[in-house]
Amino acid sequence: MADSPNSLSPLQLFERVTEQGEKVRALKAGKAPKDEIDAAVRMLLSLKLSYKTTTGQDYQAGLPPRDLVLINNDTTKEEDEDFVDPWTVQTSNAKGVDYDKLIVRFGSSKIDMDLINRIERATGQKPHHFLRRGIFFSHRDMDQILDAYENKKPFYLYTGRGPSSQAMHVGHLIPFIFTKWLQEVFDVPLVIQLTDDEKYLWKDLTTEKAYEYARENAKDIIACGFDINKTFIFSDLDYLGTSTGFYRNIVKVQKHVTFNQVKGIFGFTDSDCIGKISFPAIQAAPSFSSSFPQIFNGKENIQCLIPCAIDQDPYFRMTRDVAPRIGQPKPALLHSVFFPALQGAQTKMSASDPNSSIFLTDTPKRIKTKINKHAFSGGRDTIEEHRRYGGNCDVDVSFMYLTFFLEDDDRLEQLKQAYTSGELLTGELKKVLIETLQPLIAAHQERRKQVTDEMVKQFMTPRKLAFEF
Amino acid sequence: MADSPNSLSPLQLFERVTEQGEKVRALKAGKAPKDEIDAAVRMLLSLKLSYKTTTGQDYQAGLPPRDLVLINNDTTKEEDEDFVDPWTVQTSNAKGVDYDKLIVRFGSSKIDMDLINRIERATGQKPHHFLRRGIFFSHRDMDQILDAYENKKPFYLYTGRGPSSQAMHVGHLIPFIFTKWLQEVFDVPLVIQLTDDEKYLWKDLTTEKAYEYARENAKDIIACGFDINKTFIFSDLDYLGTSTGFYRNIVKVQKHVTFNQVKGIFGFTDSDCIGKISFPAIQAAPSFSSSFPQIFNGKENIQCLIPCAIDQDPYFRMTRDVAPRIGQPKPALLHSVFFPALQGAQTKMSASDPNSSIFLTDTPKRIKTKINKHAFSGGRDTIEEHRRYGGNCDVDVSFMYLTFFLEDDDRLEQLKQAYTSGELLTGELKKVLIETLQPLIAAHQERRKQVTDEMVKQFMTPRKLAFEF
Repeated sequence: MADSPNSLSPLQLFERVTEQGEKVRALKAGKAPKDEIDAAVRMLLSLKLSYKTTTGQDYQAGLPPRDLVLINNDTTKEEDEDFVDPWTVQTSNAKGVDYDKLIVRFGSSKIDMDLINRIERATGQKPHHFLRRGIFFSHRDMDQILDAYENKKPFYLYTGRGPSSQAMHVGHLIPFIFTKWLQEVFDVPLVIQLTDDEKYLWKDLTTEKAYEYARENAKDIIACGFDINKTFIFSDLDYLGTSTGFYRNIVKVQKHVTFNQVKGIFGFTDSDCIGKISFPAIQAAPSFSSSFPQIFNGKENIQCLIPCAIDQDPYFRMTRDVAPRIGQPKPALLHSVFFPALQGAQTKMSASDPNSSIFLTDTPKRIKTKINKHAFSGGRDTIEEHRRYGGNCDVDVSFMYLTFFLEDDDRLEQLKQAYTSGELLTGELKKVLIETLQPLIAAHQERRKQVTDEMVKQFMTPRKLAFEF
Repeated sequence: MADSPNSLSPLQLFERVTEQGEKVRALKAGKAPKDEIDAAVRMLLSLKLSYKTTTGQDYQAGLPPRDLVLINNDTTKEEDEDFVDPWTVQTSNAKGVDYDKLIVRFGSSKIDMDLINRIERATGQKPHHFLRRGIFFSHRDMDQILDAYENKKPFYLYTGRGPSSQAMHVGHLIPFIFTKWLQEVFDVPLVIQLTDDEKYLWKDLTTEKAYEYARENAKDIIACGFDINKTFIFSDLDYLGTSTGFYRNIVKVQKHVTFNQVKGIFGFTDSDCIGKISFPAIQAAPSFSSSFPQIFNGKENIQCLIPCAIDQDPYFRMTRDVAPRIGQPKPALLHSVFFPALQGAQTKMSASDPNSSIFLTDTPKRIKTKINKHAFSGGRDTIEEHRRYGGNCDVDVSFMYLTFFLEDDDRLEQLKQAYTSGELLTGELKKVLIETLQPLIAAHQERRKQVTDEMVKQFMTPRKLAFEF
């Protein structure tokens, strides 16, 4: 443990990052082999992440950590406390983030069997396997949504995506698959925000590029099968300039949130640009129906339900805090777990690390290679040991992915037993995953090909949807 | 001096404000006479202003000043240093702010005779008396505008107003009168920003009220005689939602300005709302022609000239700093002095203090009463002394106002000599001012009556203006 970045002080970590940065530069300058440079860059990124996890701030060259406050204010902070914010997810536990702890820390509610049964009664549909399997595991005020629904009061769905690159990965599909199901079983309108402005602010991108990514991502989202008559997809860069309702809500939120608050919630510092500092209001505003006068006929009090990964909750905790002060209903939420990286559940799948991700553009061959090469296995070191002691589904990434994508409950249970008993080998489990994902992704690619520019334009045009308000 | 708020320490001032606040509450609770409450409130506001002037921060109940940095970093700070920012103008000098010092502090350039002569040559018009009399006294890059103009390269004008109440006062007219002259002699397009979002963020107003003020103020601005075919007036709350070009420029500025910078420039604190913190980008963006695709046919590099009072310069120093980093030309500026309050040039006329202001809605009788009752006089205490020693035009508010509104240079010079020699009494000087202002304001009111809702709508519609770009 002495060597692990987690046991170093902020200053030691700062020095390690600085050293490693110099090493990368030296390797690049010396035209070292690509493998060697890549390995050094990976180490650098990992050290930077540890630095951020420890200090709550991004590493800045030449600025050693001073007066740093640890993110977690508990004096009893455990060394392996999970770190979760909208930009970073990290835990030292191979099983992934401790979600029960997260519910307590975030102050949300667990989705229990009572709630799942109530959803089944209200919709008359078998609950989606994401609900049955705890992939959507936490909520805020879902009871209120169901109360309203049972009393024939309308609500709408809001979800979104930060379009950081052209290629989406399978993890990005989770909220959309679930949102599509919600839209179908509740028959409600849906708005999907593409935060191209956020990506412009956070990344080294032009506004044009960010907007292009938004339109490309819209095609993948449309390919999930959303109903064109009930769904509005919008780019912030575009929609802000076409809706007076949206900006009015943004400025209302911005009036009711201080820098102190966003500093506490998102860890912003005085060196952050004012665009980042005010951005949370832009993610908050679609929670209010008056941001969409075309859809809701100007009605202001329509309740909103937001399905999203739990790392987005800080935005909506803030939104829920502001809502009553600007005379708007608080949005309700359904939170999903993170989609694990191929290398293991210590962090989530990230499009910026191609080896951690299976992209929606990957060929069957590439999917096979990636899973065989990178998917972290809960199996034993030798076949003999595996047969004798069995594999560990709790840390096996292939098994985790199957809980997301293999809909057949019985088959999943059989695989779990066979793998745990040692009957099923890692290679065999991976094969099941490959054979599950390949047709899913091929079908997605096929549907994406059918998405025309004309359809994108229609989905992205502010307009009346097929509902009366 | 021991009793003056200016000689108190930040902590002493903090205690004085707190005490005075308690006194106001006690008077209100005890239903004291209105006069008494008003006087106590005025004292409270004055103490708060002194507190802000000294500490650079707004008074916050329960938060005593700690680690406060004086605004002016000079260690040789003079006790009577002028305070100028977009919200507060204060000096201890009855002649008003020391504008030569301000030019040095802000790093702008003086408008000298060479520049005035060059403007005369370029336009073939006698320079406006605001230029001849040093009312527009400072500039940035006006030479570049003239270089371009002489080479037949186009530019456009940008000015604006924060619509904080329905009633505008005569001081508010200064930038508009001058801008109208510039538009006529240079024959260029003009955009006028009404920052109703700013007023919503800073004041206790709804967005609806702020927008209503913007539309009411637009009528007074239109009544100044702007050419409907060459002028676009816009409310931020409206225009942000109707122009993708505008928001794109806002977010570009927001990416290139940090909280540290706006803290340094505008004195924002961690307790300020994120709307205030990001607002400077919204005042910056109209400096770039791509914010107005309808007017400029999407052209991005058209130079901008901003006539404004010098307290707005911080916004445009920031804009000029950002411009090259987002590939845009720096806007040029022409700065005016402040329009003094009736009570004296120590502060500017403010619509929130009715006694300090002559409103564009005031009746002839009211104008007369206000000037006679409130206009600070540079005359002597008795007629005998006045005849003997003469009056002081440097501190006489009536004379100052005449330099703004009496166009006849010879007449003004005669009045100055007669007043200084003691030949002209204060009452007689005030009479000249009254007789100058009454017809001016009556004519303005007459023109304002002609402004129809249809005209306002047309001025405020994004559209092609009568220029080719």
